[in-house]
Amino acid sequence: MRIARFSIDGNVGFGVVEGDELDVIKGHPFAEFERSGQKVPLDKVRLLPPVLPNKVVAIGRNYAAHAAELGNTVPDVPVTFFKPSTSVVGPGDPIAYPSFSQELHHEAELAVVIGRMCREVPRDRVKDVILGYTCANDVTARDVQQRESQWARAKGFDSSCPLGPWVETELDPRDLTIQCTVNGEQRQLGRTSEMVRTVEDLIVHITEAMTLLPGDVVLTGTPAGVGPLNVGDEVAVTIEGIGTLTNKVIKRG
Amino acid sequence: MRIARFSIDGNVGFGVVEGDELDVIKGHPFAEFERSGQKVPLDKVRLLPPVLPNKVVAIGRNYAAHAAELGNTVPDVPVTFFKPSTSVVGPGDPIAYPSFSQELHHEAELAVVIGRMCREVPRDRVKDVILGYTCANDVTARDVQQRESQWARAKGFDSSCPLGPWVETELDPRDLTIQCTVNGEQRQLGRTSEMVRTVEDLIVHITEAMTLLPGDVVLTGTPAGVGPLNVGDEVAVTIEGIGTLTNKVIKRG
Repeated sequence: MRIARFSIDGNVGFGVVEGDELDVIKGHPFAEFERSGQKVPLDKVRLLPPVLPNKVVAIGRNYAAHAAELGNTVPDVPVTFFKPSTSVVGPGDPIAYPSFSQELHHEAELAVVIGRMCREVPRDRVKDVILGYTCANDVTARDVQQRESQWARAKGFDSSCPLGPWVETELDPRDLTIQCTVNGEQRQLGRTSEMVRTVEDLIVHITEAMTLLPGDVVLTGTPAGVGPLNVGDEVAVTIEGIGTLTNKVIKRG
Repeated sequence: MRIARFSIDGNVGFGVVEGDELDVIKGHPFAEFERSGQKVPLDKVRLLPPVLPNKVVAIGRNYAAHAAELGNTVPDVPVTFFKPSTSVVGPGDPIAYPSFSQELHHEAELAVVIGRMCREVPRDRVKDVILGYTCANDVTARDVQQRESQWARAKGFDSSCPLGPWVETELDPRDLTIQCTVNGEQRQLGRTSEMVRTVEDLIVHITEAMTLLPGDVVLTGTPAGVGPLNVGDEVAVTIEGIGTLTNKVIKRG
């Protein structure tokens, strides 16, 4: 099932994607819900970020080929950092090129959407805390990342976390194609089977330290091929079984 | 004015501290509000974290003597990291010793509470976006911090961000005594005038990259004297003109 969050005529809701329509949900997807039977054409709504995370917990250097392309090795312990809720934008929303960087990079990532409050999740219960999966772009000010030891500004600026287009709830995340194009030209191509740590590993590792809340998002790292984004570029992240997240880079107004 | 957030009989509200009473606020402190005239004795309420931040943006190595004690220099650019909302606890709440650390440290800090949504704040407008100040303890798993290049787990675990006891809205932050005691014994003592970057510097730097929301919190770094916390310890952060934030360290249950 694909669950989208949308707005139409000033109202915000969730709906189940069925072909080119949304079946509007009564309530929200973090508890049992009913479909209303009220159908809205997908091309009449604005898709929003599929969830409003309280926090995004992201993982660095989780694909060996990507670690190598930036001159890094795969760390003994997953590199774990936050992107704040203010960095999240939805499908079709602009990525505003930040004033303090001259080197913005795309990073296509599989995003795990948490479905229930959890802490110290045992490996065999990880599937129970996951609502589903969506596409993410861990947009990074690479020059700032190289200058600043902690990445709050390099990876936490406004619009640095596009998410979408919807949450796919029935998906085996272990071997999916993940791709990034810029202006239609392929830049990143990998498979989630290349992850050094699996989704289970990461949820166990993160929740050893902190509570995850419904709607929180875990980014699982990017495959090789990261590269520059320029003003005017259209960047698209496509993950097999989910769909495509497209955003355009604009000059900050 | 001192604004506290509290619960009593299952109800949560804000109140203005007057002596040993709270004058309950109609509404919330992020807009113009009235005092209700309804008084509640302070010793009858449970004080909560004075705000529920969407994010806490924290600064490392902002006191030269503290940077030196850990073998670091003052960086050219402020070290900027996040503590998530799930790390925030209030005055009197326990700090739960995390299972993945054997070296928990206290870090007493002046916390800036943001009063209005802001982005790219000019230096001369910083005062307009600040609601007030409170005490913070940037509790740190020092061993984990040394092992993991990004500090999300070392400084973002549950209960690693005690805040309180209230927000003081009329305070000049430039030269205040800041102190930390453990079981009544002084461990940290400094003055906010020793900060390498001022509150103005930090707000300008952070909001160059990201939007701050009402209730967001900026931690301004810790003076020298950081050291271990053990289960059973009572740690107190006292800042001149604000008050004292006290928390006890417990074993995780």
